[in-house]
Amino acid sequence: MSDVGMDTIVSLCKRRGFVFPSSEIYGGIGSTWDYGPLGVELKRNVKQAWWNSVVHQREDMEGLDAAILMHPLTWKASGHIDGFTDALVDCRSCKKRYRVDHLAGEGDHRKCPQCKAEIDLKTNPPRLFNLMLKTYLGPIEDESAITYLRPETAQGIFVNFSNIVNSRHRKLPFGVAQIGKSFRNEITPGNFTFRTREFEQMEIEYFVRPEDAENSYKRWVEERFQWYQALGIKNDKLRLRVHAKDELAHYASGCTDIEYNFPFGWSELEGIANRGDFDLRQHAKISGKDLTYFDQAINKRYLPHVVEPSGGVDRAALAFLVDAYREEEVKGAKRVVLGLNKQLSPYKIAVLPLLKKNSDIVELAKKISSGLKKYFVVKYDDTASIGKLYRRQDEIGTLFCVTVDVQSLEDKMVTVRDRDTMHQDRVNIDKLDEYFQNKLS
Amino acid sequence: MSDVGMDTIVSLCKRRGFVFPSSEIYGGIGSTWDYGPLGVELKRNVKQAWWNSVVHQREDMEGLDAAILMHPLTWKASGHIDGFTDALVDCRSCKKRYRVDHLAGEGDHRKCPQCKAEIDLKTNPPRLFNLMLKTYLGPIEDESAITYLRPETAQGIFVNFSNIVNSRHRKLPFGVAQIGKSFRNEITPGNFTFRTREFEQMEIEYFVRPEDAENSYKRWVEERFQWYQALGIKNDKLRLRVHAKDELAHYASGCTDIEYNFPFGWSELEGIANRGDFDLRQHAKISGKDLTYFDQAINKRYLPHVVEPSGGVDRAALAFLVDAYREEEVKGAKRVVLGLNKQLSPYKIAVLPLLKKNSDIVELAKKISSGLKKYFVVKYDDTASIGKLYRRQDEIGTLFCVTVDVQSLEDKMVTVRDRDTMHQDRVNIDKLDEYFQNKLS
Repeated sequence: MSDVGMDTIVSLCKRRGFVFPSSEIYGGIGSTWDYGPLGVELKRNVKQAWWNSVVHQREDMEGLDAAILMHPLTWKASGHIDGFTDALVDCRSCKKRYRVDHLAGEGDHRKCPQCKAEIDLKTNPPRLFNLMLKTYLGPIEDESAITYLRPETAQGIFVNFSNIVNSRHRKLPFGVAQIGKSFRNEITPGNFTFRTREFEQMEIEYFVRPEDAENSYKRWVEERFQWYQALGIKNDKLRLRVHAKDELAHYASGCTDIEYNFPFGWSELEGIANRGDFDLRQHAKISGKDLTYFDQAINKRYLPHVVEPSGGVDRAALAFLVDAYREEEVKGAKRVVLGLNKQLSPYKIAVLPLLKKNSDIVELAKKISSGLKKYFVVKYDDTASIGKLYRRQDEIGTLFCVTVDVQSLEDKMVTVRDRDTMHQDRVNIDKLDEYFQNKLS
Repeated sequence: MSDVGMDTIVSLCKRRGFVFPSSEIYGGIGSTWDYGPLGVELKRNVKQAWWNSVVHQREDMEGLDAAILMHPLTWKASGHIDGFTDALVDCRSCKKRYRVDHLAGEGDHRKCPQCKAEIDLKTNPPRLFNLMLKTYLGPIEDESAITYLRPETAQGIFVNFSNIVNSRHRKLPFGVAQIGKSFRNEITPGNFTFRTREFEQMEIEYFVRPEDAENSYKRWVEERFQWYQALGIKNDKLRLRVHAKDELAHYASGCTDIEYNFPFGWSELEGIANRGDFDLRQHAKISGKDLTYFDQAINKRYLPHVVEPSGGVDRAALAFLVDAYREEEVKGAKRVVLGLNKQLSPYKIAVLPLLKKNSDIVELAKKISSGLKKYFVVKYDDTASIGKLYRRQDEIGTLFCVTVDVQSLEDKMVTVRDRDTMHQDRVNIDKLDEYFQNKLS
C-alpha cells in the first residue's frame, strides 16, 4: 500500500507514542497536540537537520531565539494588528459564529451550515476578527497591558537586524534562522497536526542587496526543495507551487510554496517569499530607528531586501511520517514499516534480548545498549517476545535491531537486523561501534 | 578577577550576540530577552547536554513535548487557579499597584515605596492576583474561552501519564523529561535573564513505588548536582539548600534546591521535590479518570509517587556564562575568556586567515572550515586582524582557533591555538579531523 489514510497515521501516532491529543484526560483542547516520547525525538531530529543545514553548514547564516512575547508595536509595523483578520458573522438563528468564506451562497445571501437559515450580510454585516492571541502583561488588565503571542517568528528577526549586524560584524548577504512556537487563533484548525493554534516554525530571513534578491529567491526555493528530498520525501509527493500575481502581498515580488501531497490533498509545507524591504521599512518607520545598512563596498546606505523561507516544524514532521509509512506482506503477514531517513528515526538502534528470563542474556544486552549509547540513540527493550519487538521497532522506524541470544554468550557475536531489507548480519560485539559508524554516518 | 559583576555579563552578552533586550527598537518589553546568534547556540548546548544526560543515556526515561496551551481544568487540578497568587494592593496616593510583601512596615501599616504614603491594609485590603497569563481561544472572548499559558511544563507530563505507560509499555520506576517554555506574570521580574515572564524549563517527573520515593529523591538530588559540576560549575559557587519543613507544600515530604552564587547572591537553579501522589491524585479527581498504575510484580493497583527535578534553562545558561567568565593579564594587556565547558561552547573551532588580502590563504581557510563542519560547529572569520579575532573568540568561549598563514600554503600545516592555555600546535591539515576528535570527544 502506498497511500496511507490519516486515520492510520493518527492511530499509529497514539498507539506508539508519537502524538497524543493534548489534555486528553479533560476531553482535549481543540486541535492541540502533545508530542510523545517518539514524537519529541522525531521533531528534535527534524529541527536538528534544519538547523545543521541552514546554520551550521553555512558561513552566511546566524541563529536567533527571540521571545514569544514581543512589544505590541511590532505587530503594528508588520501589519498584523490591522490586517491579520478573518471576517466572521453571527447566525441569528443558531447563535453560532462563522467565517464568511465558509458559508454557502454568494454575495450578501449566505446559508448557515448548522441550521440552514439564511444570513443576509447586508443587515447582519460581518465583523473582522483578529487572529492573534492576546494576553495582559503586568498586574493590571487594561489596554496598555495588551500583548500578543507572536503569530510568526519572523518579526523577532527583523527587530534584531541591527543587533545581529553589529554584534556579528556581518556584511550582506547574510541570513538569520530561527525555530520557535507561534500562535494563531485559527477559527478552523484541523487535519491532525497540520493546522493548529499553537505550532512551531522554522524561519529564515535572508538579507541581500536589492539587485540580488531575485537570484537569492530562486536559490532558496531550490535549496529548500532539495532539503525535503534529501531527507527522503518521495519525488512524486513533493511539488512547487508558484503564487499567481494576484495572490501576492502588495510588497512581494514572488512567492513559491513547497507542497506535499498529504492524504487530505496538496498542502503547504513551506513558503519562500521575495519580500522586498517591506519589513525593515515598516519597523524603521514605526520605531523611528534607522535600520539601513551601510554597504562599504559601494559606499552606500540602503534598506536590504529580504528573502524569507518559512516552514512549519509540525508540518514537516507530519509529512515525513506520512511519507515513510508503508505496509508490506512478509510470509503472509502484514508488516508495517516507518521507513524514516536515518537522520530522522527516533531511535537508531534497539537492543533486544532473545530470552528475557536468561539473566546472562539480559545483562549482556543491557551492557551492549549502554555502550552504544555513547554514539547513538539506542533503546533497550525486553517487554515482549522477539517477534513483537521487531514489529514494534519497524513501526517506529528504528533502523537496526541488535538481538542477543544464548550463542552470544559463547561467541561474543550478536544478530543485527536491518529495518528495510530485514537482512541479518552476525557481528562481533567489539565491532558494533564501527559497524554502526559505517552504517549511520 | 574571579567575581564578575552582572553589568559586565549583560554588556558582553549584548556586544557579542548572546542576549539582546527583546523588541529593543521599541524600547523593550519588561524583562523579556532574545537569545542572539551565540546565545541560541549556548542554550541549545545546555538543553542537549540535559536531554542526553536524562533521556538518551538512561533506560528508565522517556521524553515529551506537550503543548503550552492546556485545558483550563489542568490548572484547577494542579492548584494554580486557586493558589498561584500574589497579594497586591493599590496605593491610593500614587495610584500604583504593589506586592504587599514588598512594602515596608509590618502588620496592617505599610509604607508605599514610591510616594512614601502609608497604606492601611485594614481599610485598603490587598487582592489576590493570579500569576498565570490568560488568553482566549476561539472567536468569542468570554469565560468559556479562557485558557492559560502554562506556568510550568510539569502538568503536561502528569496528564499524559497513562498515554506514556500504555504506548511505551513502561513499568515503574520510570521518568518523563520535558523541555519547553512556561509563562508567569511576575510582578517583579529582574536580574537579567534570571527571572522573566517567559522562560524555558527542563523538568522531570520520576514515577516510583511509594516506598521507593525517599531513595529516588536522594539519588536525583545527587545526580542533578553532579550534572552542573560535570559541566564545569565551580564547586564553591554551587550548593544544596534543603527546604525547612515549614517551606514545604502540604503534600511534599522533601525539597532541595540547587543554588548558584550569582553576582546578586545565592539563587535557585533547580529544585528537586518529593511530591508524593498529589498531582496524579488531583488529576484523577478532577478528570474522573483512573490514573492508578497496576503493578504486576506485587499484583497491586496504586497511584505512583513522584520525584520532580525542575530546572530553568535560562538560569542554567546564565550560571554557565557567569561561572565561565574570567579576566587575565597577558603581556600587560587584559584578556577576557569565557572558559565554557567543551560541550557548551557555541563554537568549538574558529578558522582564521592571517592575511585577508591573500586570496590563496582565504580560499584555504574557507576550505578547512567547510571540511571541519562535517563534525564540529565551526566559524570562519576574517572581519578583523588576527589579534582582534583571537580576543573575540576568547570572549565567546571558542575552544580552538585555527590560523592559516602564508606558510600553510607551502607546508599544508596550520596553527591551532588552545583557548585556555594559549598554547599553539602546528598541525597537518590532513590530520585536523583526528586532532579535534581527540580534543573534543
